[in-house]
Amino acid sequence: MIKTDNLIINFTPTGMIPVKEQNPFVPVKPNEIIDDVLEACRIGITSVHLHARNPVSQEPDYKAELYAEIISGIRKYEKELVICVSLSGRNFNEFEKRSNPLTLNGNLKPDMGSLTLSSLNFNKQASINSPQMIYDLAVEMAKRKIKPELEAFDAGMINYAKYLIKKNILKPPYYFNLILGNIACAQADLLHAGIMINDLPENSVWTLAGIGLNQLKINSAAISFGGGVRVGLEDNIWYDKNKSKPAKNSDLLKRIHAIAGANERAIMTPAEFRKILNLKPGRSKYGCL
Amino acid sequence: MIKTDNLIINFTPTGMIPVKEQNPFVPVKPNEIIDDVLEACRIGITSVHLHARNPVSQEPDYKAELYAEIISGIRKYEKELVICVSLSGRNFNEFEKRSNPLTLNGNLKPDMGSLTLSSLNFNKQASINSPQMIYDLAVEMAKRKIKPELEAFDAGMINYAKYLIKKNILKPPYYFNLILGNIACAQADLLHAGIMINDLPENSVWTLAGIGLNQLKINSAAISFGGGVRVGLEDNIWYDKNKSKPAKNSDLLKRIHAIAGANERAIMTPAEFRKILNLKPGRSKYGCL
Repeated sequence: MIKTDNLIINFTPTGMIPVKEQNPFVPVKPNEIIDDVLEACRIGITSVHLHARNPVSQEPDYKAELYAEIISGIRKYEKELVICVSLSGRNFNEFEKRSNPLTLNGNLKPDMGSLTLSSLNFNKQASINSPQMIYDLAVEMAKRKIKPELEAFDAGMINYAKYLIKKNILKPPYYFNLILGNIACAQADLLHAGIMINDLPENSVWTLAGIGLNQLKINSAAISFGGGVRVGLEDNIWYDKNKSKPAKNSDLLKRIHAIAGANERAIMTPAEFRKILNLKPGRSKYGCL
Repeated sequence: MIKTDNLIINFTPTGMIPVKEQNPFVPVKPNEIIDDVLEACRIGITSVHLHARNPVSQEPDYKAELYAEIISGIRKYEKELVICVSLSGRNFNEFEKRSNPLTLNGNLKPDMGSLTLSSLNFNKQASINSPQMIYDLAVEMAKRKIKPELEAFDAGMINYAKYLIKKNILKPPYYFNLILGNIACAQADLLHAGIMINDLPENSVWTLAGIGLNQLKINSAAISFGGGVRVGLEDNIWYDKNKSKPAKNSDLLKRIHAIAGANERAIMTPAEFRKILNLKPGRSKYGCL
């Protein structure tokens, strides 16, 4: 494991599921997402995990143009922030669509792309990531020098990363996002989290995410045990455990800062994260070295 | 957990993958499968997990007629053996095809049907079991009084069974088959096995399966720790760890008997398993009470 004293905050403002009818603070349109990300940068974050949405229907959208609008809006002010684009196949599963955000170049080029390490079930639907699709996306990212954000929802997905490492399809260092509490995957308990962290390959950094009300407790455990956090409305739309107060992204981030402060952990800067992951410095070029 | 002193041997002679070119002893045609099952009954087994194959191409086949031929051949001599049919969606994913073996009635009615509790990836392909498909198959089995054999390949799939229990879609007692060592799922180690056994709901009996050369060590652990085993050529085609000797189903079973004997565990009879799972006695009718 790569030792990281400072706390990685992977900010995930939007996701694929929450809509304004459930929480009016979910940023959906490009300018809303940009505003939330820039505010998050003022509070202090390390990276952002972006999902684009159709501005009218609020449906998830894969189109590079939408990602371009969001990325250029962020980089106008924040050139160092590590930007990861979603390559999720939950709503569209053709390679051309899923890899579309990877085609952006120059100042629009993402630093990272998400790579879910197996097929799985969410609450109401299957999310299909066949071995061939995982391979194709990983190869495409390697070709474009874009770093995969490795998403593992259950213990076995880490083994699949190890297989890809053995086959030389994934290159070190590795960034793992361990997402706990999905209905048919590893649960948001310390035993499942502990096993997954323990199973990670050498040369890894990791963040923990918790779905729904699990976000706070899983983030807290990660902070106190030396990991990073993924936090934002993508995973959790409520601020309080009684689900009476819709969360704002900024409030979720401020709470993480409070817990980090109490645990004597400074927030990792985007520049430091770039160094750890061998990403190019944001003021020169994007993608990985 | 339901305490079971006697050892459940769930015999899995064929599966979907191995073909005669890999191991000449794999039973593929109905009469070959019947012969292996009857020989297994003479050695001593508790239940059988059947996959039908096209007799010429050796491809997996869902057709009730094929299952009927196998089941009638077995029950001509062995009326008590607990028979589970595969409802796998690995090669065909329409409900009508997957549920086809459930339509058999009278003396051909299966006692159980397999129910995989999420989507997952195998080595080369995704196996898609959407939440809706799992629901539909479970409801169909409940309607027909056929007991689900709950297949879990990773920790989170047990949580999904708990969800189905809470929703009253699955009824106690529960039979879990925990399959370890698939490339993108829980690994064949004691930590993963231990977590999964620990997570099982009340009123469960369980068997452990290990894929490939993991079969022997995982079966051995199950025997010594009070669980049951799933064993046969479906999961493992080699007898020795150097992969020099193609296994025969009968040899795999005799080895399990030797380990069971050394561990002072008698083999559970089909009649006892029927009682534990509330299945009808084999000499009266099939399916569950």
